[in-house]
Amino acid sequence: MSLIERLTDEFARLPGIGRKTALRLTYHVLRTPPQEAHRLADAIIAASERVHACSVCGSYTEASPCSLCSSPRRDRSIICVVEEGSDIAPIENTGEFRGLYHVLGGRLSPLDGIGPAELNIESLLARVREAEPVREVLLATNPSVEGEATALYLHRLIAPLGIRVTRIARGLPVGGDLEYADGVTIAEALQFRREL
Amino acid sequence: MSLIERLTDEFARLPGIGRKTALRLTYHVLRTPPQEAHRLADAIIAASERVHACSVCGSYTEASPCSLCSSPRRDRSIICVVEEGSDIAPIENTGEFRGLYHVLGGRLSPLDGIGPAELNIESLLARVREAEPVREVLLATNPSVEGEATALYLHRLIAPLGIRVTRIARGLPVGGDLEYADGVTIAEALQFRREL
Repeated sequence: MSLIERLTDEFARLPGIGRKTALRLTYHVLRTPPQEAHRLADAIIAASERVHACSVCGSYTEASPCSLCSSPRRDRSIICVVEEGSDIAPIENTGEFRGLYHVLGGRLSPLDGIGPAELNIESLLARVREAEPVREVLLATNPSVEGEATALYLHRLIAPLGIRVTRIARGLPVGGDLEYADGVTIAEALQFRREL
Repeated sequence: MSLIERLTDEFARLPGIGRKTALRLTYHVLRTPPQEAHRLADAIIAASERVHACSVCGSYTEASPCSLCSSPRRDRSIICVVEEGSDIAPIENTGEFRGLYHVLGGRLSPLDGIGPAELNIESLLARVREAEPVREVLLATNPSVEGEATALYLHRLIAPLGIRVTRIARGLPVGGDLEYADGVTIAEALQFRREL
């Protein structure tokens, strides 16, 4: 196999990258100066080797515990539970949440062989029970079938501990249009209505 | 800057990759085993360092001259001129062309500062004039404004040498629909009509 084919194959293994895009990326690498190609390759290796899961919350970090877990400025009484580490940045960007996070590393999906043992649920329960003065767990798994099932499962585990368990709201996205929204979303938006 | 941000920045420099896709690729790298990340990084470095322009046709190759230029089975009397090395594979895949190639490395685009001196035109003229028994030059630059201008420019240079200069046909794409085709394409399809 030629080096061009080899690199194209590697690019095509990345999620969302098809053969044609992979070939375009390969030719981009061939056209750029070698030092730029090295910079990309070095960044891949550095991230792969030196970024690990935080020992407390499970998010990706170079330090452990991560900067959020070790920050003295975060509200340690509320933990936001997300499916993946990549879900933290969009929440942080809103500036609306000042608590801590917990990354499950996925969602319950029996068809894919992912049960409670495959997710970081034990460590979440340990945090809730022991280490921290937690008063609320905010479940921010995705509003998909599996995300809802995961939230329900966690609710059943955590609520008996006398801790408030909340769920991010579902409803119409800002800038959306009632006419084009699906029925389930509209139904949820009606149920989640609040006083103005 | 964190390693996650650094890798995301590098991915976002690739053509057609936005911030969100770059972040998704970064998390993919973090999730995959280090040996897979190394394989991608190694393929990038190997392609960047060991793939060069063919000394004859200018296409990307590990050997020089490339396998097409050095093949005894190719018809050396016809040269197909393309803008980029990536244009060769789609033509080869048709199985319709058995001649040689010449890669210009771009197209004439005065607004971008790309004139004849920036393209591999001298080496094309040298091939046509001296080294090879060339009877036909097939101009396969893109059917864009710049590609047409480049083809016209080359035609004016090569035709006086007594060599047949041809242009790939424009017309309706196979599977296309007259109703939705643009007027210029339909006009070209009418001009390029042929006997059945």
